[in-house]
Amino acid sequence: MKIGVAYYPERCNFEQWKIDYQKIKEAGITTIRIAEFAWSKLEPVRGEFHWSWLDDSIRLAVEYGLDVILCTPTACPPNWLACGEPGILPLNEKGERMVFGKRQHRCYNTKEYLDCSRKIVEAMAKRYGKRQEIIGWQIDNELGGERQRCYCSNCEKEFQNFLYEKYGRIEELNDRWGNAFWSEEYQGFETIKAPHEIDGQLKLKHNPSLELEFWRFSSRSIVRFCEMQAEIIRKYSQVLVTTNTDSFAWGDCVNIYELFKKLDIGGMDLYSEDPCEIAFYADLTRCLKNSGRFYMMEYGVASHTLDRELADLSLSGCEFVSLFKMNPFPWGQEQGYNGLLSMSGRPTTNYNMLKDKKNQNSCEWKETKEIGQLKIGIYYSFDSSWSFSIANWEEKQDRWIYAKYILEKVYGSIYETGARAGFLFDAEQINGYDTILVPRNVIYNEALEEALVRFVEDGGNLITTEDLFIKNIDNVYLTDTPACYISLFNKTDHIFLPEIDWKDESVLIKNTFGNGRVWVLKHSADAEDWKKAMEGLANTCNNIVLKDNL
Amino acid sequence: MKIGVAYYPERCNFEQWKIDYQKIKEAGITTIRIAEFAWSKLEPVRGEFHWSWLDDSIRLAVEYGLDVILCTPTACPPNWLACGEPGILPLNEKGERMVFGKRQHRCYNTKEYLDCSRKIVEAMAKRYGKRQEIIGWQIDNELGGERQRCYCSNCEKEFQNFLYEKYGRIEELNDRWGNAFWSEEYQGFETIKAPHEIDGQLKLKHNPSLELEFWRFSSRSIVRFCEMQAEIIRKYSQVLVTTNTDSFAWGDCVNIYELFKKLDIGGMDLYSEDPCEIAFYADLTRCLKNSGRFYMMEYGVASHTLDRELADLSLSGCEFVSLFKMNPFPWGQEQGYNGLLSMSGRPTTNYNMLKDKKNQNSCEWKETKEIGQLKIGIYYSFDSSWSFSIANWEEKQDRWIYAKYILEKVYGSIYETGARAGFLFDAEQINGYDTILVPRNVIYNEALEEALVRFVEDGGNLITTEDLFIKNIDNVYLTDTPACYISLFNKTDHIFLPEIDWKDESVLIKNTFGNGRVWVLKHSADAEDWKKAMEGLANTCNNIVLKDNL
Amino acid sequence: MKIGVAYYPERCNFEQWKIDYQKIKEAGITTIRIAEFAWSKLEPVRGEFHWSWLDDSIRLAVEYGLDVILCTPTACPPNWLACGEPGILPLNEKGERMVFGKRQHRCYNTKEYLDCSRKIVEAMAKRYGKRQEIIGWQIDNELGGERQRCYCSNCEKEFQNFLYEKYGRIEELNDRWGNAFWSEEYQGFETIKAPHEIDGQLKLKHNPSLELEFWRFSSRSIVRFCEMQAEIIRKYSQVLVTTNTDSFAWGDCVNIYELFKKLDIGGMDLYSEDPCEIAFYADLTRCLKNSGRFYMMEYGVASHTLDRELADLSLSGCEFVSLFKMNPFPWGQEQGYNGLLSMSGRPTTNYNMLKDKKNQNSCEWKETKEIGQLKIGIYYSFDSSWSFSIANWEEKQDRWIYAKYILEKVYGSIYETGARAGFLFDAEQINGYDTILVPRNVIYNEALEEALVRFVEDGGNLITTEDLFIKNIDNVYLTDTPACYISLFNKTDHIFLPEIDWKDESVLIKNTFGNGRVWVLKHSADAEDWKKAMEGLANTCNNIVLKDNL
Repeated sequence: MKIGVAYYPERCNFEQWKIDYQKIKEAGITTIRIAEFAWSKLEPVRGEFHWSWLDDSIRLAVEYGLDVILCTPTACPPNWLACGEPGILPLNEKGERMVFGKRQHRCYNTKEYLDCSRKIVEAMAKRYGKRQEIIGWQIDNELGGERQRCYCSNCEKEFQNFLYEKYGRIEELNDRWGNAFWSEEYQGFETIKAPHEIDGQLKLKHNPSLELEFWRFSSRSIVRFCEMQAEIIRKYSQVLVTTNTDSFAWGDCVNIYELFKKLDIGGMDLYSEDPCEIAFYADLTRCLKNSGRFYMMEYGVASHTLDRELADLSLSGCEFVSLFKMNPFPWGQEQGYNGLLSMSGRPTTNYNMLKDKKNQNSCEWKETKEIGQLKIGIYYSFDSSWSFSIANWEEKQDRWIYAKYILEKVYGSIYETGARAGFLFDAEQINGYDTILVPRNVIYNEALEEALVRFVEDGGNLITTEDLFIKNIDNVYLTDTPACYISLFNKTDHIFLPEIDWKDESVLIKNTFGNGRVWVLKHSADAEDWKKAMEGLANTCNNIVLKDNL
Repeated sequence: MKIGVAYYPERCNFEQWKIDYQKIKEAGITTIRIAEFAWSKLEPVRGEFHWSWLDDSIRLAVEYGLDVILCTPTACPPNWLACGEPGILPLNEKGERMVFGKRQHRCYNTKEYLDCSRKIVEAMAKRYGKRQEIIGWQIDNELGGERQRCYCSNCEKEFQNFLYEKYGRIEELNDRWGNAFWSEEYQGFETIKAPHEIDGQLKLKHNPSLELEFWRFSSRSIVRFCEMQAEIIRKYSQVLVTTNTDSFAWGDCVNIYELFKKLDIGGMDLYSEDPCEIAFYADLTRCLKNSGRFYMMEYGVASHTLDRELADLSLSGCEFVSLFKMNPFPWGQEQGYNGLLSMSGRPTTNYNMLKDKKNQNSCEWKETKEIGQLKIGIYYSFDSSWSFSIANWEEKQDRWIYAKYILEKVYGSIYETGARAGFLFDAEQINGYDTILVPRNVIYNEALEEALVRFVEDGGNLITTEDLFIKNIDNVYLTDTPACYISLFNKTDHIFLPEIDWKDESVLIKNTFGNGRVWVLKHSADAEDWKKAMEGLANTCNNIVLKDNL
Repeated sequence: MKIGVAYYPERCNFEQWKIDYQKIKEAGITTIRIAEFAWSKLEPVRGEFHWSWLDDSIRLAVEYGLDVILCTPTACPPNWLACGEPGILPLNEKGERMVFGKRQHRCYNTKEYLDCSRKIVEAMAKRYGKRQEIIGWQIDNELGGERQRCYCSNCEKEFQNFLYEKYGRIEELNDRWGNAFWSEEYQGFETIKAPHEIDGQLKLKHNPSLELEFWRFSSRSIVRFCEMQAEIIRKYSQVLVTTNTDSFAWGDCVNIYELFKKLDIGGMDLYSEDPCEIAFYADLTRCLKNSGRFYMMEYGVASHTLDRELADLSLSGCEFVSLFKMNPFPWGQEQGYNGLLSMSGRPTTNYNMLKDKKNQNSCEWKETKEIGQLKIGIYYSFDSSWSFSIANWEEKQDRWIYAKYILEKVYGSIYETGARAGFLFDAEQINGYDTILVPRNVIYNEALEEALVRFVEDGGNLITTEDLFIKNIDNVYLTDTPACYISLFNKTDHIFLPEIDWKDESVLIKNTFGNGRVWVLKHSADAEDWKKAMEGLANTCNNIVLKDNL
């Protein structure tokens, strides 16, 4: 596993680079990840590119034997763009335009921003695409962070087109969304507004069908923006292209499986010292692609030593980890502590630890363990995640209610026993697993339904929850029973009405179908219930161990 | 007691109606309450009315022996109105216009909304007013729900007129409101703004006199809107007209005594399984009119069986209860569970219970008990309620602080002993009671003062709290002592300054006047204090039982 | 110590004045503080001054032997100004304009407000400046209360000028603020906006350097407004001029040391019965000037008797205390209880207490104790206070996080032992103390650094915290070590990295330098730690008592 570090040449000068590169090198760090916020230094005036500082700092890095991962700086439009074209600043639910002064102040659907982004990405790719020292590209920074959905008129227009393409006729949309409810019928696609907050004081929800489509549209806008950049970079460069999605820090709002589809390797940022959380995000990120490997694009340096965490990462398929960061920032919103060096430039215990490992050549994390097929797979559904967030939108902590459930109740119960699990985001990824867990997958998915039936029929184990497929793809409750209920659960009604004998039992159904087994848990199943269910199911299978220890 | 159910023919079709009506009939439900949100189906394009679906569904209902309560659909202006005339959308305290996408998005003082409302109400009344099968009308739905006060320029203008009519001269208003305080004097009625939030970040209060008038004005706007509809309906129909006020769910913001003055019977919506709360709202709603009966326009179907609650209602004078609802909604903001049928159309335990009762012809709630004069009456003052809410506006839970006190501390203490109480909203309703409770009636009311003095003089028992009449009708503290303090309390000063000997005693005064008795409790009297006071007073009267058990 | 009372002649009439003045006199109150909110009565129409009521009420006060402190009424612009020139209403962080209807609705940088303020202050000063009965002036009321910073375009423009004057070149500003971070570089001073809330939903911080300058600018705007008034008054009057700053009730947002620089005596409003808090504000207010005395411009009348509190104040150098208030207000936002008289005009226990003391001529607080040089001084840094508030802005309670720390942890630990401390706001005030406490002074201050080194060298005791001078004046962390770390702490690095042996020890350094001693506490030192440190240091100095009991 290669160690990198986030570095900011734009914020200092040649003399400082030499000092820092030397220290980076001595700690056994091989790669610097640079430029992800450097737009204003690269293009201080619209259309005027200043490359010399970046040229020089890269050249010098090569002299110190350092590789470079180059980032596109589009997450921070400079003041000349934000001030000159205030329409690029996103609008929140309340219709308030974001103010320049932080980051992520951009609407993914506004022409002026897209144009300027294309230009700087093309200019960078052209200039650095063929350079040997650039070993990879990071697109943007934490796409979808901070402001996740924009409600401006450009987005609204695009959203109307998105709906028109999908539904064709407004009657179809009215019908599927149940707009006869509360007289919400639209007369035409052009009368559909972005779902602005209904009232700034009362907590009032929009139609959940409208919301789910808007979440899908917003995710797609981000995915398209990323793909646009990837396409440009690939015109000039052959090396690996990725991005650094945040670990649901700002909520689960981008379909990261879609986001990475056209990228080369999963990339994640993580600020956590919790072993289970590290394992969760490692397994999740790795499974975004089928390569068995992934990149940790930012990993937060903490006050205690990181050797155990780094070893954990390498054992989970992490090929590259970029520590955040070399120097603590003295200025700006992230000013304060946490770096490999102190504010006054002294080595911290982490820096010394890295240096010692390098010198002793005894580094536990040197080799990245390539992870093959695991026995347990957890199905992660963005549609279901968003459906829960939409239903629970009043509570901020519920921005990732579903992800949290998967992490703490499902994945956590596996991790606690010393085992690990892979993740599936698509029915196509189902092959190879012995056991599939499908927790709280409320939104119906035809391909998944068929795959699950085949999977169990062929001898697989399925554990799911009673709310499987209770809503259709429009976020509307199903009134008919999906076919899999009949085959897998031997049940003609998909509604589990409370009955007395269920009271103390979290497993509602234990069934066999074909050569496989199906257990259905209550929707409120907690970590203990999941653990017991997996143990119980293992016993049923003659104590065959269903789990992998990495 | 007749059982009805909320039904939504506009959301399905003829085939489904047949299935549902059959099931409704089999459960012994005699009435459907329909159309309260169906505006967009009745008038899909401005001025174009589509009656056929409603005609058909009513005709079919008759075939199944079902009666119909028809609702005017004005609580949900369709998209063509909200989009075409955005001025009809109400403005909140912050000056933000409500967004289309929920319900109750209408300003009660905006011409375009009033015009369109008049038209559809008139068209419905004309078409259905004489039909035998329509046994009653419900005006609108939960008037004053969600957005209770609108701060738009139309309301502001009407508010200025309201004040002008009341005060005549601006000097009179300045003087009565104490506007010399903080230099708040107005130069003319036209400079008085609706009391918008003073600062979106700081919690700053407006003059409580201004606020109380604005609350009164807002309540009056709703009452007038309702009366306008009632007048139209009565031109064409002879049957009973009511409305369904919510049970303070959105706060106590409409003077429901005024609201029902020109209607035929009290109507309420209630979602509670708490017996005391059910009794409270039953007694309250019944006493809105002097008929001894009332309608429960919506009563929420819960997960357990409702037989006890239905019996309770019938014993409290409930003549008709409309269950909410037949089918759970698969789409929209209220999607999810709770219906007489499950999401997949299966009967629930409640449905089965209703059906069994019908078949056994053994229904406890068959007869509505007509409630006569009770011994205890509680005086409910909207002015006082609003004064408390205005004073405690920072806390959302205090939107009904006064009502909650009446429910939990006063009514609750009576209910706990197995007894019941009536409610008074007007001095004229005082006759017939043995004991009158006047809790926390801070706002002075001349007619009430005179009535209380007469009532006690003539032998009545009065229990009140030390803050009786401490403010005048302008929400300004009285500096003089009201006459009743002298006669009833034998006290020349209406201010109860804390004294040492009161410390452990919640009863501040026990007095006799004429043939009656007067007890004054601390303003902080809790349920226990009220219970003790009523018991104590009963002992004083030679243990005469003061209470009614229903 | 003279006793005064807040009185509002504008709200009543001649007959009432006679009654009230008589009662004021009988209670031994010698002074009335009047007119601080009376703008609309003094200038009911723009440019038309109505003096007669004020003339008469002052004349009558003289007849009753009462002195007058006259206040300028600028904290409450009348409706004609707020309505006629809505630009005078301040804008909050969200860009929302404050609404007329409370007080403090004025932007300190808007011409129309400044012009009208100048006019009424000049008119008042001219009319009353020479009158014998006016013994002092209070400028405005609680300057900086409620809305502390205004974000309007006038303020923005002034702020740009303020920055231009300070930084000269935009590159200098970009460099010092570290604006390369997140591409935040400005192209010119005219593109710097007032730091409006970045997003109304997400909690996002601005650059702390920008914020600190905006806080300084906002404080300076208030100070200038006050100085403008003082200058006008002094053209016509020889008597003492002060103002009544609030006791951090609305947050610590005005540099009150600067505010009082050109005024004659420290003036404070306090609503607290806590002895420690009273002592704290007394010591703090007294030390704003070097006179050993101060005025308590408002002191809240509570429900219990105030004799102890009044005695405490007189022992702390309080020369004059103005009780708030004679009569409780029946109307307006502050309606309700607390006055020397009850709502109905009856004497309260406090009134009777004052009257008794007067009649017995046995008043403990008669003499104001002039306070000389104390042994312990606490350094109070507004820059540091604001830096903490800016860093902790999410939490409302942190509007005065620093002041609260000084009060509860530092001052409180001294007060608990029965001792008292003075306050320093400027390096020049250092002389005369034996021990200087410099808690949490994060922002570097060159004059203070030099003064501290000299002070310790000359034999003084210094107790400070590990975060002393860790940031420069731009609110940016220092990467170099300040000179005083080397001399005073014998430490070449100003960053205290956590080490194992510090774990259970709150004192990180015990050093001697020259003839003095230096102790450095952890930044998290609580009251107990401060107490122990002071005791420990005293023992080191051969048990010399370091403290004063007043």
